[in-house]
Formats: sequence, structure tokens, C-alpha cells
Amino acid sequence: MKVESPVEILLVEDNPADEELAIHALQRNNLANNIYVVRDGQMALDFLFQRGEYEGRNGQNAPKLVLLDLKLPKVDGLEVLRQVKGDPSTKSIPIVVLTSSREERDIVESYQLGVNSYIVKPVDFEQFTESVRQLGLYWLLLNQHPS
Amino acid sequence: MKVESPVEILLVEDNPADEELAIHALQRNNLANNIYVVRDGQMALDFLFQRGEYEGRNGQNAPKLVLLDLKLPKVDGLEVLRQVKGDPSTKSIPIVVLTSSREERDIVESYQLGVNSYIVKPVDFEQFTESVRQLGLYWLLLNQHPS
Repeated sequence: MKVESPVEILLVEDNPADEELAIHALQRNNLANNIYVVRDGQMALDFLFQRGEYEGRNGQNAPKLVLLDLKLPKVDGLEVLRQVKGDPSTKSIPIVVLTSSREERDIVESYQLGVNSYIVKPVDFEQFTESVRQLGLYWLLLNQHPS
Repeated sequence: MKVESPVEILLVEDNPADEELAIHALQRNNLANNIYVVRDGQMALDFLFQRGEYEGRNGQNAPKLVLLDLKLPKVDGLEVLRQVKGDPSTKSIPIVVLTSSREERDIVESYQLGVNSYIVKPVDFEQFTESVRQLGLYWLLLNQHPS
């Protein structure tokens, strides 16, 4: 899969409704022009490590933010976290877990694996959109990521 | 030093003007009632690891957020990061570096050590206040930290 221009946000989400809501919130607020979506954990790893379909992608163009669901097909979100945060070449990429899980076990494990931030998806449509807007503002405009 | 009630934000800052601005921004927006300030890196480590003057402090009451300057007396911010993020008992505490340094070396090193987020202090008074307000909103209201 050819990825032409630098991806600002990598969205790892298998739920089409949540995907649409998140993209809508980010684009409506002009927070990201270039959002790339993958729908399972294996594709997320392939993308970030430039493997498989993404071999040859310029690894210098790391996304400014990865939005990572936890319950994912093939490879789950915690395993994606473990691999990305365990490798110095990808450790600096900010990863925000965006999940419906409020389980303390998931929260603690995510932080132990090095997640940058953990956000519980609000059930309410409006609140979900507002949360994504706020996290977009924070991570794309306020946070300083390695260039 | 007795620390009575649970600290919400540990502010590690040796510049009195920046300290005052940050506290003002957080309190004016009702984001934190209980901000605790230490002025060097050694005190920050003592506080977080319940040592020295803070022996006996309840370690279960981890702050929801540590705001960490980099240029600090005694122990610098990067060394604080290294120790706190290198120990499983404190790794889950969110740490945001808030610094005047835009140096790529500091940014990369902070992420490699496991910082949650890196924010450059705006020089302008109003923008500084607004940045602290935004990061307070994000980390105290939106982010989910381990309980």
C-alpha cells in the first residue's frame, strides 16, 4: 500500500462507527489533513515498522500521534504498545489509547508498557466528538514531538 | 515535611515566576485544589519515592500529574525522568515536561526515557497561562490515570 504524504495521525480502530466519528471530529476542527486508518494490530505494527505492505515507507515520517484501540483483530492493542514502546526506533512516537475499556488492569498495563495517555471513549456521541477534538488539540498543537 | 491530603499535581519548578503563573492558571480554572511545589530534582525524587523528608507519605496517593522542568538544581529533570520511569512502582505516574528548551536533543531524550508529553513554555505571559490551562484540562479531566 503506497502512503504518499506524511501521515499526521495513525488511527488504529476496527469499529467503523468510531472511526467515522473520530475522523469527523479531527477534520471538522482542521486538526489533521492526513489521517491514516488501519483496522487491526498487525497492520499498525507493519505501518510503524515499515514492514509487509508498508515496506519502503519513509520511517522518518513518523506520525505525530497514534490513536490506538485496545480490542483489535489479529494483534491486540497492548501487544502493539509493547512492541512500539519497546523499540528505541519507535518509542518516541506518542501513543494515546482510545478505548471503551475502563478496566483498571488495562489502564495499569498500558502505562507500564509506556503509553503516553489513556482515554476512555465516552458512550455519548457528542462527548466522544468533543474528547477527540480536545485530544487532537493537545497532541497536534500543544505537545512537542521529536521532528 | 508533612503532606496532608492527596496531591493532585506535583509541580517541579525552580523559577518563582513560572511557578506562580502555573499555579494561577490551574487554580483560576478550578483544575487543581492541591498543587504541591518542589524546587529541585532531588526533592521531586524524595517526594515520589517517599524518601527523606517525605518518608511515610502514602505512596498510594500518587499525583495525577507531575509537571517537570528540565533545568533544575541538584538533580536535573532528565535524571528525575530516568528514575521515575525506570521503576515499575512509579512508571504509571503521568509526567509532562514543561520547559523553555526547544532543543531536539532534550525532546528526543525525554521521549526515550518515557515522558508522557513534552511542552515548550511559551515566552508570552498569556500564552503560557493558556498552555497550562489546556494541559491541566487534558491531564486532569480527560486522561485516565491508574487509581
